[in-house]
Amino acid sequence: MPDETASHTHNLSHTIRVARGLAPADLLVRGGTVVNVASGEVYPANVALAGGTVAGIGPDYTEGREVIDAAGRFVLPGLIDAHMHLESSLLTPAEFARAVVPHGTTSIVIDPHEIANVLGLAGIRYILQASREIPLNLFVMASSCVPATDMETAGAAFGEAEIRELLGWDRVIGLAEMMNVPAVLGGAEGALGMLAAARERGLPVDGHAPGLSGRDVVAYAAAGIRSDHECTTAAEGLEKLRLGMYLMIREGSAARNMEALLPVVTEGNHRRCLLVSDDTHPHDLVSRGHMDHALRKAVSLGLDPVRAVQMVTINAAEAFGRKDLGAVLPGYRADLVVVDDLAGFRVDTVVKDGRPVVQGGRLAVPVRGRPDPSVYKSIRTGAVTEASFRLPLAGGRARVIGLTADQLITEHRVAAVRTEDGCVVSDTEADILKLAVIERHNATGNIGLGLVQGLGLKRGAMASSVAHDSHNLIVVGVNDRDMAAAVRALTEMGGGFVIVVDGEVRASLALPVAGLMSEAPLEEVAAAGGRLRAVARELGVAPEAPFVTLSFLALPVIPELKLTDRGLVDVSRFTLVDLAA
Amino acid sequence: MPDETASHTHNLSHTIRVARGLAPADLLVRGGTVVNVASGEVYPANVALAGGTVAGIGPDYTEGREVIDAAGRFVLPGLIDAHMHLESSLLTPAEFARAVVPHGTTSIVIDPHEIANVLGLAGIRYILQASREIPLNLFVMASSCVPATDMETAGAAFGEAEIRELLGWDRVIGLAEMMNVPAVLGGAEGALGMLAAARERGLPVDGHAPGLSGRDVVAYAAAGIRSDHECTTAAEGLEKLRLGMYLMIREGSAARNMEALLPVVTEGNHRRCLLVSDDTHPHDLVSRGHMDHALRKAVSLGLDPVRAVQMVTINAAEAFGRKDLGAVLPGYRADLVVVDDLAGFRVDTVVKDGRPVVQGGRLAVPVRGRPDPSVYKSIRTGAVTEASFRLPLAGGRARVIGLTADQLITEHRVAAVRTEDGCVVSDTEADILKLAVIERHNATGNIGLGLVQGLGLKRGAMASSVAHDSHNLIVVGVNDRDMAAAVRALTEMGGGFVIVVDGEVRASLALPVAGLMSEAPLEEVAAAGGRLRAVARELGVAPEAPFVTLSFLALPVIPELKLTDRGLVDVSRFTLVDLAA
Repeated sequence: MPDETASHTHNLSHTIRVARGLAPADLLVRGGTVVNVASGEVYPANVALAGGTVAGIGPDYTEGREVIDAAGRFVLPGLIDAHMHLESSLLTPAEFARAVVPHGTTSIVIDPHEIANVLGLAGIRYILQASREIPLNLFVMASSCVPATDMETAGAAFGEAEIRELLGWDRVIGLAEMMNVPAVLGGAEGALGMLAAARERGLPVDGHAPGLSGRDVVAYAAAGIRSDHECTTAAEGLEKLRLGMYLMIREGSAARNMEALLPVVTEGNHRRCLLVSDDTHPHDLVSRGHMDHALRKAVSLGLDPVRAVQMVTINAAEAFGRKDLGAVLPGYRADLVVVDDLAGFRVDTVVKDGRPVVQGGRLAVPVRGRPDPSVYKSIRTGAVTEASFRLPLAGGRARVIGLTADQLITEHRVAAVRTEDGCVVSDTEADILKLAVIERHNATGNIGLGLVQGLGLKRGAMASSVAHDSHNLIVVGVNDRDMAAAVRALTEMGGGFVIVVDGEVRASLALPVAGLMSEAPLEEVAAAGGRLRAVARELGVAPEAPFVTLSFLALPVIPELKLTDRGLVDVSRFTLVDLAA
Repeated sequence: MPDETASHTHNLSHTIRVARGLAPADLLVRGGTVVNVASGEVYPANVALAGGTVAGIGPDYTEGREVIDAAGRFVLPGLIDAHMHLESSLLTPAEFARAVVPHGTTSIVIDPHEIANVLGLAGIRYILQASREIPLNLFVMASSCVPATDMETAGAAFGEAEIRELLGWDRVIGLAEMMNVPAVLGGAEGALGMLAAARERGLPVDGHAPGLSGRDVVAYAAAGIRSDHECTTAAEGLEKLRLGMYLMIREGSAARNMEALLPVVTEGNHRRCLLVSDDTHPHDLVSRGHMDHALRKAVSLGLDPVRAVQMVTINAAEAFGRKDLGAVLPGYRADLVVVDDLAGFRVDTVVKDGRPVVQGGRLAVPVRGRPDPSVYKSIRTGAVTEASFRLPLAGGRARVIGLTADQLITEHRVAAVRTEDGCVVSDTEADILKLAVIERHNATGNIGLGLVQGLGLKRGAMASSVAHDSHNLIVVGVNDRDMAAAVRALTEMGGGFVIVVDGEVRASLALPVAGLMSEAPLEEVAAAGGRLRAVARELGVAPEAPFVTLSFLALPVIPELKLTDRGLVDVSRFTLVDLAA
């Protein structure tokens, strides 16, 4: 696994001289108490850095050309988020780095499957390019499930050939979560080919197998899949750990499993346990932080602080075969964090590749994004007019997607619906609204039409270009005119979120990067998100995070009834169905 | 790290079918109690194998086309010796496998620096070729110190170019013990180039730094060296562990450090501790076994049996980045051992790549060596006659290599010596004997002559082609005629050990493979070794293992006075010195 960012920071001869005391450290972290993740100990020690490498540790190191005073504080390895999706933050790599590095995160392992569904290999190449100069190690797992199913149209489709290409790229360090469990268990050629490609290179494969148990999860592990971040109960966690899978304990925005899973962790198995975020939405990044939040919460729940630190540093590095990361030890990459204590984990200083990048809790270096127009203008639909939303129905009963509170699972309902001139219209009294998914990658003109109940919208329309996993446009509204206007506004913005009432845009957030990400800073993105939620609430919308709710209505791998650009999907039967019931 | 032996045993689709219960296991290990090295637990479970892979584990697996009854016994992963030199056993890879597989060893990580000093890259290629079809995974660390110094003539010299070539070979998984500590600490270009080569490929580097401490050992670790097997005290072990080096606790023939080092192991650091053998001589392989002996001894000294098993399985696999080895878990290579209990560790059954290769404690499959004449006839000296050993001396005092009981360290003595016609002759009364090292790789005619005290030989001569690390011929004798005859006999045998008295060979062991290894089975080699020791004792020889003692008299990296083909070496001053004192 060559790594372009590893070698150029490492000047071995200089490192050795600093270690031997023949030259002062380039940067000395003095007077702190170090968490030694290799020996499992905590003790006072100075840390001498040479270039981008830890050269020395111990009381002998007292001279540095630059000095950070860590007296009274604790020195940890830079924190690693071993499984996450950048796109959930709605931020570019640079803005994500600006957001999380002050929280102590210095490495992330991402599955870029959202942008891959839109832009294919070019999307992943963009992520790698855009992260070359940020103070955050960004590693990519090759997205294994693009698109998620064949009942939808995505902007790309990855087979074994694409995976083999990706695995040869710099900073691509494994195969991402194998969500297509049936394909693995069924021995489908494409899935096995991807697994073989990772195996041949000795690279890790992440899993995603909620609730899988018994012989099926044994088979999933036997296929070489070595982690799972979808466990929700202690019994499930223990079963997977015993099969040799790394237990990725998730504490994200949509899913929070730490309380349920921490009881699984023992002295005998902790080296196989990690803390990960999976998905963190902008307002949670603002209010909670990132991996520092995971540490705080784990320790507040009773986990030993050294074990907690190991779970977000050396354990993650080992899981991904990174021998240069995850420890404040000689020869390791000089990524480290100075925190006030091992309970609050308030970050004072972050050193990345030997440079102080956060001081006094604030970013101390410029982090420049690189606007990249090549990933703009990804919205390519057929012509969309009011007439596009005409929904003829013979008979008065139709299938309706039923929202359930705080869950991604929907209900497959059948209801009497309002019709005019033989066509269904939205019915705010029964809270049954028209929903459409519009293919937006290749301008095929595909539109899937359906109905959703439980959103609460009383006026206007809401539209989004974030719609898992194919990220077609999804729009819901009380009238066809506003639905068409919302799609038009979205297209002009290059994607994002929009609320339209009476033909006017009432709130919006542009996500011009592939229709998934903004180039604005976290604060702006979170503020726009707040405005969108407020306006939605004014318009009667019930769910707390309506655009998140909307974005999952197009994902046909979560039961029961979903809508894609090709139509209604009965997820239980894994097949397209008619609107008429 | 591609591995020719890993992929062909892995038929993923079949493995998945067995795991799901859709097909019977190819081999079922039934009724045993499994040591789960991932979860740190011990519990009853059947193990279902599919081809060369573990498919399933648990009570559900009850059907196998072949069944091993493990009732009342314990199932462990195949044992891994993470650091050893094959040549110490005097056996070829096939005979070594025949010797150790019945003791539960299924993987070894070797540094082939002995044969590399004789045959260079061709010697390592031979080891890899000769181990392709044996029931033992043989991994090679690229030998970093060939030759050990520039004060001797070896058959090869490795620089960065040779290391880079080796690191590209199949089954070469890292850079071997960096014995040249001064070169690392001094930032010598050659050493740094080798370290960079390993680092660029993300491969591990083993250390060898007896007694190194303080800033020097910090610098050694900072250079990227991640293990040490030379620790002799708990304080040294803890110091190196804290620097992130894997603590390889050695229990071999010449050096036994387990008692001293086990107290270092804690719940916080055990994942970074391994048990290794380094060097095991034939008679110890016969009388003690191999890694089963290490387990027995560790547990008898009070180490938790699960921790002990982890230290010779998963910990070793992790240290070398082998994600397919070291655990009886789904998707891992089906290398496992059935033992009677977790105290005696008597091996009943060994399964290698899914095949039972040991049953009832005995090898159950043929293991064929491949005689390879290309590595015979490695002894190429200049003309050697009685006159070659003439040792003129002006004055009556000379430097003498003084043997010390049970140690590899020699004393640098100065003594009055017996002369005849202006030349030194052996003096059995003072026990000062002539010693010669004869260059045998390129027939340069180089002969280094010196004197040794403390061997005790009263008649004849002893000669060996095993002489660390350059493996020139070393001969000691009470008269020049027998010394010349011993060298002649050795040359005719293609190398080995020989004792000659009055021109007659009294005992010998031919080591035709590079002059270092026999193609005979362990039992024959050990028996010949026993005869050589008995004859030596009859002739007055004091050291327990005289040929081992002899073999280290030519190694100029262990103090104080040594002899190479280029002359006497004062190791403290690291320079050649005259015989005359």
